[in-house]
Amino acid sequence: PLAWGRAARQPPGLPLAPCRAFSNNKILVELDESSGVAMMKFKSPPVNSLSLDFLTEFCISLEKLENDRACRGVIFASAVPRIFSSGLDITEMCGKSMEHYAEFWRAVQEIWLRLYGSNMVTIAAVNGSSPAGGCLVALSCDYRIMVENPKFSIGLNEAQLGIVAPFWFKDTFVNVVGHRIAERSLQLGSLYPAPEALKFGLVDELVPEEKLQEKAMAVMAQWLALPDHARQLTKSMMRKAVLDRLVAHREEDVQNFISFISKESIQKSLRMYMEMLKKKK
Amino acid sequence: PLAWGRAARQPPGLPLAPCRAFSNNKILVELDESSGVAMMKFKSPPVNSLSLDFLTEFCISLEKLENDRACRGVIFASAVPRIFSSGLDITEMCGKSMEHYAEFWRAVQEIWLRLYGSNMVTIAAVNGSSPAGGCLVALSCDYRIMVENPKFSIGLNEAQLGIVAPFWFKDTFVNVVGHRIAERSLQLGSLYPAPEALKFGLVDELVPEEKLQEKAMAVMAQWLALPDHARQLTKSMMRKAVLDRLVAHREEDVQNFISFISKESIQKSLRMYMEMLKKKK
Amino acid sequence: PLAWGRAARQPPGLPLAPCRAFSNNKILVELDESSGVAMMKFKSPPVNSLSLDFLTEFCISLEKLENDRACRGVIFASAVPRIFSSGLDITEMCGKSMEHYAEFWRAVQEIWLRLYGSNMVTIAAVNGSSPAGGCLVALSCDYRIMVENPKFSIGLNEAQLGIVAPFWFKDTFVNVVGHRIAERSLQLGSLYPAPEALKFGLVDELVPEEKLQEKAMAVMAQWLALPDHARQLTKSMMRKAVLDRLVAHREEDVQNFISFISKESIQKSLRMYMEMLKKKK
Repeated sequence: PLAWGRAARQPPGLPLAPCRAFSNNKILVELDESSGVAMMKFKSPPVNSLSLDFLTEFCISLEKLENDRACRGVIFASAVPRIFSSGLDITEMCGKSMEHYAEFWRAVQEIWLRLYGSNMVTIAAVNGSSPAGGCLVALSCDYRIMVENPKFSIGLNEAQLGIVAPFWFKDTFVNVVGHRIAERSLQLGSLYPAPEALKFGLVDELVPEEKLQEKAMAVMAQWLALPDHARQLTKSMMRKAVLDRLVAHREEDVQNFISFISKESIQKSLRMYMEMLKKKK
Repeated sequence: PLAWGRAARQPPGLPLAPCRAFSNNKILVELDESSGVAMMKFKSPPVNSLSLDFLTEFCISLEKLENDRACRGVIFASAVPRIFSSGLDITEMCGKSMEHYAEFWRAVQEIWLRLYGSNMVTIAAVNGSSPAGGCLVALSCDYRIMVENPKFSIGLNEAQLGIVAPFWFKDTFVNVVGHRIAERSLQLGSLYPAPEALKFGLVDELVPEEKLQEKAMAVMAQWLALPDHARQLTKSMMRKAVLDRLVAHREEDVQNFISFISKESIQKSLRMYMEMLKKKK
Repeated sequence: PLAWGRAARQPPGLPLAPCRAFSNNKILVELDESSGVAMMKFKSPPVNSLSLDFLTEFCISLEKLENDRACRGVIFASAVPRIFSSGLDITEMCGKSMEHYAEFWRAVQEIWLRLYGSNMVTIAAVNGSSPAGGCLVALSCDYRIMVENPKFSIGLNEAQLGIVAPFWFKDTFVNVVGHRIAERSLQLGSLYPAPEALKFGLVDELVPEEKLQEKAMAVMAQWLALPDHARQLTKSMMRKAVLDRLVAHREEDVQNFISFISKESIQKSLRMYMEMLKKKK
């Protein structure tokens, strides 16, 4: 009885809600009903940061696809050049109320629970840099293809900002790269250029940018060749322990986030980081 | 106080039961008392499938060796050309009674508990393809040597048949190849040619077919050079958590299997698979 | 509320205890207050074995640094040529009283709890062979640099002596090299020459002996570039489960050690091993 995933889908007897192409403000979604594959493109310039608005829209879009029988797989990519997603929006964590921090963090949890626990085949087509929360989105998919440009980097670099990735970021990371690489990378806040990321399996393969879409579709076809039922049960078996852990400690995790992020020392270092980003422009 | 392994061996004061070469219908066992090494050869043409009869004989043979003080290690190989074992016998899972499914599944559990928890050194000399349950037999050993022929493949490909590997197949797999490779391979039902299998450690080394026996004996000698007591305690420390998990959920796992396998949709896809196999001949 | 680490440091209002260079019998400690980096050199010829005296001094030295605000990182190396540390001192485990075994084992536990749970950045500069407990010291650090000399080897070779590495040695090892490598290496009691150790990540990099100190300082600078607070919380998140496991079973682990080590068969094999070492000289 999980709260996410197809458990919440419509009873089979009811007419399906119409769900073809639905466009929004920050995310473009296109579903090809013949193949059962949706393309979800992040289009929130300048850097696709995961603001509360973005996360809310992301969540609704995912839920619609999850509940749409015509959709069996989703490919995630960016519509913004050179960046996949810059991760959590720092302005949401700076100078806001406790209530706001709580609402924001619940939205971050929600998107991860839905994405990591999705019944659909999920493929990240990483066509740009993908630090922190952007990396988490990629890590939560079933497969990661990255553009081979060494200027694009990926990693959970939270420690560089003086903040700490929560345990479920860590669990997701460990499940992909193993304990040792995760331990070292999280402590150093390492960002890896695409070729490095490939070496220890943070991404599954690299392709030239112009081949990315074609490759993502080919990999999707390979995954969709398997019977959905067996694939979904297998995926759930692999990920359930880690998903259940957040579900069991969700409110505690919100409180941890609030008390950590509202510390004056953390607020100060986030403000400094934002100043630095502004000067960079 | 484990139910399997040497715990059940004869009290030291009693005379040892004679246990040299004992031949059966489907498995050939030869014990060399001077070296303490037994060779167990699967000889159940055409494909060494793990039928209830095969599993019963496998179990008795293993138990005999486990309780025989003269035996310290076993090498498993096939006496059938080009196939190590094709895995669980689908005819045992198709159109049979609930009681039969339960009996069959308990036999599958039993062989894994005995093999994965064996006090003997166990080496798989994989001289042919080894899908599904055949792969599990290899994964449960201490060491895997495979013939370097790229036409021979190995993997847990259950998903391709529309069925799901149980959690203890998964746990055994994760312990060998890690979480990420297991997650991807199980969802895709991947079978890997020998050279691929070597790359991520699904097998430990490859040799030309004519060198297989010699190599297996050499590796066995290396493992037997260690004091049994320290080696056995170490092995148990590494595998106990995963063994205990099935022991604690054994009956539940039987019920899961029965209710899954007796679904009409699963029965249908198994029948289709068997038809396909017949046409192939 | 962990018993080790900075939790026990002095209240901020009190004057800091003077803690610059303090020399002892078996370990040389030098703290460079400008960089915040301490160098700890094992100087207990002939082989830096971890005797009760050595462990006690090691523990006190670590605690002093841990509680010294001027110290943010420690580099461990040997002042004895060709050996980093030979591991637990066998004479402490041979022909002694139960009380002595208990005291010795508690000291071994204590050094691991402090080292694996340290809030400081810990780097092992492995300038010589490092079997058994010596390997554990290296495995407990944040980073391992080894001299590239293939005559220097490292590994948990306890099984070769007929003894068994305790579960927390195993947990530490699995966290570094993964389950499969740990399972095989522990059962075989494998010692790996430096180049082999690098291959599967038992050490992080190799350097020529004359570059070791320089390299260790460079790596330390890289780790110290991160904010202490975020790095420490991240490290604790990665290691807490394994540390807590020993804390929860500490007394049980002492009893296990005593009853194992005081067996006549184990005593006999340790005596034989010591005889062999004496003849080697």
